[in-house]
Amino acid sequence: MTTITELTVHDVRFPTAAAGDGSDAINRGDYSATYVELATDGGPTGTGFTFTNGRGNELTCGAVRALARHVEGRTLEELAAEPLAFLRSLTADAQLRWLGPEKGVLHMATGAVVNAVWDLRAKVAGKPMWQLLAEMPTAELVACVDFRHIDDALTPEDAAAILDKGRVGLEDRLAQLRREGFPSYTTSVGWLGYPDDKVRALTREAYSQGWRAMKMKVGGPIEDDVRRARIIRAEIGPDALLMMDANQVWGVDEAIANMRLLAETNPYWIEEPTHPDDVLGHARIQEAVAPVRVATGEVAANRVIFKQLLQAGAIRVMQVDACRVAGVPEVLAELLLAAKFGVPVCPHAGGVGLCELVQHLAIFDFLRVGTSLDGRMVEYVDHLHEHFTDPVRTRDGRYLVPERPGYSSDIRPESIAEFRFPDGPAWR
Amino acid sequence: MTTITELTVHDVRFPTAAAGDGSDAINRGDYSATYVELATDGGPTGTGFTFTNGRGNELTCGAVRALARHVEGRTLEELAAEPLAFLRSLTADAQLRWLGPEKGVLHMATGAVVNAVWDLRAKVAGKPMWQLLAEMPTAELVACVDFRHIDDALTPEDAAAILDKGRVGLEDRLAQLRREGFPSYTTSVGWLGYPDDKVRALTREAYSQGWRAMKMKVGGPIEDDVRRARIIRAEIGPDALLMMDANQVWGVDEAIANMRLLAETNPYWIEEPTHPDDVLGHARIQEAVAPVRVATGEVAANRVIFKQLLQAGAIRVMQVDACRVAGVPEVLAELLLAAKFGVPVCPHAGGVGLCELVQHLAIFDFLRVGTSLDGRMVEYVDHLHEHFTDPVRTRDGRYLVPERPGYSSDIRPESIAEFRFPDGPAWR
Repeated sequence: MTTITELTVHDVRFPTAAAGDGSDAINRGDYSATYVELATDGGPTGTGFTFTNGRGNELTCGAVRALARHVEGRTLEELAAEPLAFLRSLTADAQLRWLGPEKGVLHMATGAVVNAVWDLRAKVAGKPMWQLLAEMPTAELVACVDFRHIDDALTPEDAAAILDKGRVGLEDRLAQLRREGFPSYTTSVGWLGYPDDKVRALTREAYSQGWRAMKMKVGGPIEDDVRRARIIRAEIGPDALLMMDANQVWGVDEAIANMRLLAETNPYWIEEPTHPDDVLGHARIQEAVAPVRVATGEVAANRVIFKQLLQAGAIRVMQVDACRVAGVPEVLAELLLAAKFGVPVCPHAGGVGLCELVQHLAIFDFLRVGTSLDGRMVEYVDHLHEHFTDPVRTRDGRYLVPERPGYSSDIRPESIAEFRFPDGPAWR
Repeated sequence: MTTITELTVHDVRFPTAAAGDGSDAINRGDYSATYVELATDGGPTGTGFTFTNGRGNELTCGAVRALARHVEGRTLEELAAEPLAFLRSLTADAQLRWLGPEKGVLHMATGAVVNAVWDLRAKVAGKPMWQLLAEMPTAELVACVDFRHIDDALTPEDAAAILDKGRVGLEDRLAQLRREGFPSYTTSVGWLGYPDDKVRALTREAYSQGWRAMKMKVGGPIEDDVRRARIIRAEIGPDALLMMDANQVWGVDEAIANMRLLAETNPYWIEEPTHPDDVLGHARIQEAVAPVRVATGEVAANRVIFKQLLQAGAIRVMQVDACRVAGVPEVLAELLLAAKFGVPVCPHAGGVGLCELVQHLAIFDFLRVGTSLDGRMVEYVDHLHEHFTDPVRTRDGRYLVPERPGYSSDIRPESIAEFRFPDGPAWR
């Protein structure tokens, strides 16, 4: 038995705002993590986090503290035996739920806590997260999913059928991944904060490193967006993929009009063209901009939003985030929904440690749920990996399979000490 | 000039959980307020709050503190002159926005701060909030609305046309309200925490006090819901209105099935039949349960959700909340959307001080936006009014027009002292 003796949360912030790294049409900040450690009585330490943009990271830290009562003093075995009851103790706490429900600060904190428990499960099992999930019996996986409010689109029986089918050929798919790595694309070339020359130089560098899919930020003055898109397209040639990301700044009609102007540079997808809550708006945009794909999800609040995006045919690329929703079990629900509707999942990454997390989700999805690489790519951003003890490894624009036990979520103790807000040396 | 010198936030909690007051299918807590006071240099104090269910009220208080920088040191006149810039300084703060966007803890805190500024405006003008709004020039009202992400459904021109038309007959409507009061209904009869005898006694008492519209909670075991509905229907006769509120607990198919069983008691509306983010689910339910009306909104995160509920024909009653969204200007956007789509607004109230706020919104809506009482009712819950300096007054099941300057949001200093968490005498 492994008992969780104490939850500790660290407010860790990296001073990225000054450099323009990570700047887009609507967000600009100091990349931060609400970092959770679960101490155990002699076992490993479980870790999890949610990503924020700096100011306000103290709020997600506070929300984690409000949730600590649901894990402290409990055994890993009882949480694993009743995964839905554990999940709902957090997502349906009768007093806290009003602050969401299942969205924003509270839900992000829930993701950090739930992921820390799952990291602990994987470490105790001695397996990387993707392997723990891929090898789990179908019934156990299905028992982790909260079907409330999504069972009009995905039933437990649907989920079981998908996961059973996913066992077929699993070993071959794993061998393929170990041989070739997982496809990915890079977002390090075109942040809005970068001047044209820097965009050109970064694009050239990424292309020479093997990347054949790159994402740029749009949502500034449209003539600037078109100019920057032309620069990138000229560097990467006609065949490489160019994705665009508006980070929610456009209205519905505006998104449709702007995509007409950007069409000459042949975008592969337009990401977050409008407000993340606007299911019907995304559906109108998808209809208008096809064959360009609409992609969204990094700020989708929960599985109910994803359910509707799929039901409405509003997206052709689904971008799950590892820690905005309630951790591994809610992402599992989202992967299953995507498989049911036949939409490829390309996880959102970047931020702090998101690449480290989503590599496990994408690999699991390929091994057991979506079972295809067609249209699948994991985002890659070349920031802040040095602070993790088990950072992602890429080769020729592909992620290599992580092999260490856990969810690759451990931040180095010296990085926590240096960047802890407001008392770490980096902030003093 | 009135300068806001300091923002103070109080964590005020009333121990309601023990009595079962306010218990429903999914929430149960200590009714609480994140209470904001804006001190000024010699002028009145502006007050605003958001309502929570107890645990976690420290999170909305923390979010208010994170937003304080956007009001402290600013003059009321500059905030009033640039209302959209002020609103977006809160809703689109480049670092904080990631924690929403425009939802949950951060958005609720935004509502408390924005409402405090508007309360200050009304107090300085020497008018109750409904009057400040009803007398405002159309262009000034339109300038308060953030049309970003809703302009595919409501343009500034649409809004201006509605508000201009609303000037016609305004004096007659006001005279009617002063004569007759504003229609309302009571939710004090059928909380899930109450036994059958208490429900029967409370229903009889409410009927004798003049109430002809009453709301019960459903979402427990369906046979209990049906039994309680029969008790209430038997007491109020066939003509009075019986509303039902499931507080989001049902799935989409479940809601449809349960409403078939409850139909024999002739419900007027079914409120929150499923998850508040599920626009498409509400649309399916509305189609299936008609002529019973689907009502929702108290937990709708923002104007983008309301826009879609209206676009999808998912609701026939729109229930705005005064302080879950970004205060007066976002509610104004929602009232205008409802008017554009011809759906009546019946504001959500109860909690702490929600009746005090929404009476102003409903009166303004009747005077200048919706301009009709057809299907309009304000919720009334007989809890906690004694803590307010300008509590609502009702007569024969109708709200009387409030006449004191401001938004009726001032909590008595002795109540703050008594119920402040965790150090007030009530909590020690």
